[in-house]
Amino acid sequence: MIRQFLTQIRMLKNWRKNLKQDGTRVLVYDGKQKYVTWPDPPPKDDIASVARYVMHISEFGSLATNSTHKGIEGYPFVNIFSVSDGPFNKSTGTPYFYFTPLELSVIDMKANNKVSLTVTEAQSDFCSKKGFDPEDPRCSHAIFTGVMEKIEKDTEEEEFARNALFSRHVEMSSWPSNHDWFFGKIKIQHIYLLDFFGGAQVVDVEEYFAANPFESKKKD
Amino acid sequence: MIRQFLTQIRMLKNWRKNLKQDGTRVLVYDGKQKYVTWPDPPPKDDIASVARYVMHISEFGSLATNSTHKGIEGYPFVNIFSVSDGPFNKSTGTPYFYFTPLELSVIDMKANNKVSLTVTEAQSDFCSKKGFDPEDPRCSHAIFTGVMEKIEKDTEEEEFARNALFSRHVEMSSWPSNHDWFFGKIKIQHIYLLDFFGGAQVVDVEEYFAANPFESKKKD
Repeated sequence: MIRQFLTQIRMLKNWRKNLKQDGTRVLVYDGKQKYVTWPDPPPKDDIASVARYVMHISEFGSLATNSTHKGIEGYPFVNIFSVSDGPFNKSTGTPYFYFTPLELSVIDMKANNKVSLTVTEAQSDFCSKKGFDPEDPRCSHAIFTGVMEKIEKDTEEEEFARNALFSRHVEMSSWPSNHDWFFGKIKIQHIYLLDFFGGAQVVDVEEYFAANPFESKKKD
Repeated sequence: MIRQFLTQIRMLKNWRKNLKQDGTRVLVYDGKQKYVTWPDPPPKDDIASVARYVMHISEFGSLATNSTHKGIEGYPFVNIFSVSDGPFNKSTGTPYFYFTPLELSVIDMKANNKVSLTVTEAQSDFCSKKGFDPEDPRCSHAIFTGVMEKIEKDTEEEEFARNALFSRHVEMSSWPSNHDWFFGKIKIQHIYLLDFFGGAQVVDVEEYFAANPFESKKKD
């Protein structure tokens, strides 16, 4: 209880320090705090770039696993995780996560690492400001399916994952140190994008990784 | 193509008409438009009421199914849907959906109707305004697991579901009529709530349905 209380005090101090009046999230980069407004999305028909864009600007995603938990064994199970595919100025397309083995979905993934991740423009105020319903296809969302992999400790990739996540989720560095945190990433095998009328489109995985979320080769 | 274009024009007119300058969504009720600001959440230790609250205020949720789609058969699959458990002044606790048989997850559910739904306070600006990271446990989210059921046509329940959804998702009534839309609901079998430090808590399903999202028996 005391540890929980101290953690709460630390987190409270942390967010007060980092909060802007309008609620904009702080993105820390290279030790300096920056407030970032994302550029407009790429043209709708450049589906690889749009998928990269929605991934990169997303602060969190919904991660589905195959449940191992009592009463719902074998059911699909969906949970919320903070996510980052890189610090604000470096998108990789690969979703990184910060996990503790105590967590429900992490327990599931130990038994079966097949996962699906959805990120959506509806999670910011982008869609509501445009007047798009969350299910309106123009409120873009991308569905990534693949396998979750653990990132080895003390590697360059771990350092990248840490910076990708901690620079965009400032409170993470203050999360309880006794929870055996580690980093994970999805090895993407399949991508669907919904960004316009006419149904979901399959995005080629290679084209996705070759695309740029902010510079499209196509014109709107 | 012409039909898509006409649909787009209709939707465009629809949202322009209903948009407030600050991007607040319009909730229509009894034919009159109302702009609603939700009351504060119930006390954290009243987990049944908090779960009802997060469900009721949510505009969309992440729905997980067991995939039947090419290349990802048997993988968990998560997708975004607009949701409503009732019009703004009547919460039932049951999540209702508006589906077309053409949709990816709907095709999955035809083969296997086991599903999981997550709704989170992170989807509004509630958490970012408080300075809570989306994965911060105080940014409450609820995970419902159960089976999806189709609602029979021309029943009282269908009328309720239609009003629940259309009153809070104003553009739904203009969605293309040739898509064989129908209503669905989750028969909830299991509920997890994450709303504070210390891990997820199981919410008793009966207590959940007996609770009130806006009137707690407990004091904060």
